[in-house]
Amino acid sequence: MTRPLKVGIAGLGTVGASVIRILERRNETVTQRGGRSVEVMAVSARDKAKDRGIDLSPFTWFDDPVDLARSADVDCVVELVGGADGAAFEVVQTALSHGRHVVTANKALLAKHGLALAKLAESKGVSISFEASVAGGIPIIKTLREALPGNEVSRLYGILNGTCNYILSRMELEGLTFQECLKDAQRLGYAEADPTFDVEGFDTAHKLAILTSLAFGTEIDAEAIYVEGISSITPLDLAMAKELGFRIKLLGVAERTDTGIEQRVHPTMVPRTSSIAQVMGVTNAVTIDADAVRELTLIGPGAGGDATASAVVADIADLAAGVAQPLFGKPVDQLEKAPRAPMQRHEGGYYIRLTVHDRPGVAAGVATRMAEEDISLESILQKRSEIAATQDPHGRSGAPVSLVLITYAATEASIRSAVEKISRDGLIAEPPQVIRIERD
Amino acid sequence: MTRPLKVGIAGLGTVGASVIRILERRNETVTQRGGRSVEVMAVSARDKAKDRGIDLSPFTWFDDPVDLARSADVDCVVELVGGADGAAFEVVQTALSHGRHVVTANKALLAKHGLALAKLAESKGVSISFEASVAGGIPIIKTLREALPGNEVSRLYGILNGTCNYILSRMELEGLTFQECLKDAQRLGYAEADPTFDVEGFDTAHKLAILTSLAFGTEIDAEAIYVEGISSITPLDLAMAKELGFRIKLLGVAERTDTGIEQRVHPTMVPRTSSIAQVMGVTNAVTIDADAVRELTLIGPGAGGDATASAVVADIADLAAGVAQPLFGKPVDQLEKAPRAPMQRHEGGYYIRLTVHDRPGVAAGVATRMAEEDISLESILQKRSEIAATQDPHGRSGAPVSLVLITYAATEASIRSAVEKISRDGLIAEPPQVIRIERD
Repeated sequence: MTRPLKVGIAGLGTVGASVIRILERRNETVTQRGGRSVEVMAVSARDKAKDRGIDLSPFTWFDDPVDLARSADVDCVVELVGGADGAAFEVVQTALSHGRHVVTANKALLAKHGLALAKLAESKGVSISFEASVAGGIPIIKTLREALPGNEVSRLYGILNGTCNYILSRMELEGLTFQECLKDAQRLGYAEADPTFDVEGFDTAHKLAILTSLAFGTEIDAEAIYVEGISSITPLDLAMAKELGFRIKLLGVAERTDTGIEQRVHPTMVPRTSSIAQVMGVTNAVTIDADAVRELTLIGPGAGGDATASAVVADIADLAAGVAQPLFGKPVDQLEKAPRAPMQRHEGGYYIRLTVHDRPGVAAGVATRMAEEDISLESILQKRSEIAATQDPHGRSGAPVSLVLITYAATEASIRSAVEKISRDGLIAEPPQVIRIERD
Repeated sequence: MTRPLKVGIAGLGTVGASVIRILERRNETVTQRGGRSVEVMAVSARDKAKDRGIDLSPFTWFDDPVDLARSADVDCVVELVGGADGAAFEVVQTALSHGRHVVTANKALLAKHGLALAKLAESKGVSISFEASVAGGIPIIKTLREALPGNEVSRLYGILNGTCNYILSRMELEGLTFQECLKDAQRLGYAEADPTFDVEGFDTAHKLAILTSLAFGTEIDAEAIYVEGISSITPLDLAMAKELGFRIKLLGVAERTDTGIEQRVHPTMVPRTSSIAQVMGVTNAVTIDADAVRELTLIGPGAGGDATASAVVADIADLAAGVAQPLFGKPVDQLEKAPRAPMQRHEGGYYIRLTVHDRPGVAAGVATRMAEEDISLESILQKRSEIAATQDPHGRSGAPVSLVLITYAATEASIRSAVEKISRDGLIAEPPQVIRIERD
């Protein structure tokens, strides 16, 4: 029997504690799978005394996780400290430098330092595994890296942030505002006290950067991502989406276009009948469009201690089985440096909701501006507000009404230009709402 | 540079031809992924002269695939001959005996001989890969074998036969009968001239047997599967399902119960809001319930030359990367011999559609029989047939009406007993329809 794979865990939050419990409970299966047992040797966390419901006495305790990372007693360091820099970065760098494999759930670290860390790992002949960094318990990293070598990926899109999907789901189902749902999400522990990172799309962007690199074999490039959050979405948009056969999701989208790799995070109208539209609550999902498999969708838990720990344990079991892969699926020097496709060149359908003054000539004025930019309209929907209807049920009141346009494929640049002109024309009473449409 | 992985392909139908094309097109990626290039050395098929749109001249031709399997010139034999016995079996056995790795898409072979072949492979230190054998391009084998070592699986269910899902989808969407849709499926090439194997559930059963073994770590046991096909499903059942918030799918279900591993294939009512209910047409899907990830769903193409070839190529790339796993995820002698849970002991909700004579006391008679078997009813729906309503719009006509019962969890044995009694009581005009309900 080979000697056990010796593991050190830096960070004992809900994920770290769950990893310890799962490795204990499932040690036989992990051993059978890998032909080599796994043994937790050392742990490190901020507070040794904290009650985590697990007995830490069998493990060597390190006050400093960097000391754990350089300990000669571990083959593999599990980094669950978090954060793009600071202790997490130091732990991973130290572990790799000392020839230890690294397993991490840290998307921020990989989005920022992934390329440098991949080079370091390669030079030391060790690996960095990170299944837990994107979409929690969904094996999306393994799928992209190992299941699709026969495929050229053309597009990938996903619901990668449970907080946002929870908020959008509740807004739609209960007709609530963004602020109301955010407060509830905070109360239930689905959102942080400062929710900016989640609701403004930055967390999704970190995860998308990782998936893009794996899907297209390109150098990771988080800076290139266009990012827009969900805080501007209103109950009216969700109601309109429903009426038009769509649902609104915060998607991360990566697509190979004629101008390069397009990466974007924004609220998106998806067809109500698509697999991804069915994904409600904190659940995550990723759809891959590729030439041989056509369309593949994975749906599962995006967060949670046990689900994330499940992914960490899968990485550890792979290491125990001797399966160690290059971070981005191939050696760093073979990664493509794909040009960034500028967002202005993005082409797709758009939902545009204008709050227009209800007077003669407004619809014509809007339509003219769209035509000037060569934008074709698939449908137009005009809704009078309920208040306006009450005040004047028989005719025009002059009060604002909602005018919703669905466009055929148009470029981002032309849409922005048209909307700007319409604003300047004084036709609208409120800032316009623009939501991109993604077809399956 | 390591020497190439030398591949021989036995069987050049649409999948085999696609494998050759993909390996040519994607050789660089496959090499980067595995650190070792892949070279097709030899091929074998029934008809050498047939035009497949590919140049076979670079490859050594074998008239007999078994000769190819024992050729010293290949490291890996791709078996695409098909069938549980005969040439396919001989090819695989010969290849393993001669120390060659095997990649196969043959679910019938594995369902019947999987255990013996796994033993042979183990004794020779080679592997059998079979991602393509279940659900085409969906990486369900990799997911079950490698992504979930930290999980105890409690249940697994899936749409594993595209023909059946195509037929059920069209029946529902267009209100057609089974026979009408079957004919169309045959015309479009989605169903064989003799469709029994697909529509009566046997193909699903073969695939389920493989998934069950991987999910539960048990010896493969296709004989234990309860199998029921879709030919008895009527447009009325689909309409009723819709009204009750369900959709009907042919599912393969494996579940760990108190009495052992339950394996069953049958038409199933699934909640309309579940991920699996959205899967229409020839698409396949599998959902896994497990303790750490809770619920994971994979959706993708279940068949087609390119999608299946994508899975074959992924297996080949894994071999080139030196990743060779035990067939069922662990050594054969560590597979559990789980007891078979008898179908009579199955417990779940049921949809029961009775065509009853429309006269006083019938509903009471039915309800009494259900009560005698301790079956609680969640809902009752009575529908008069349109013809009966036309004849006598104001009252009872004596003509048959549909009485649909949805039960709370009950055992298969009690349901069968109640339905048998109701038949014997002379309350029904046609054989009863019983469809099991699977909740997500």
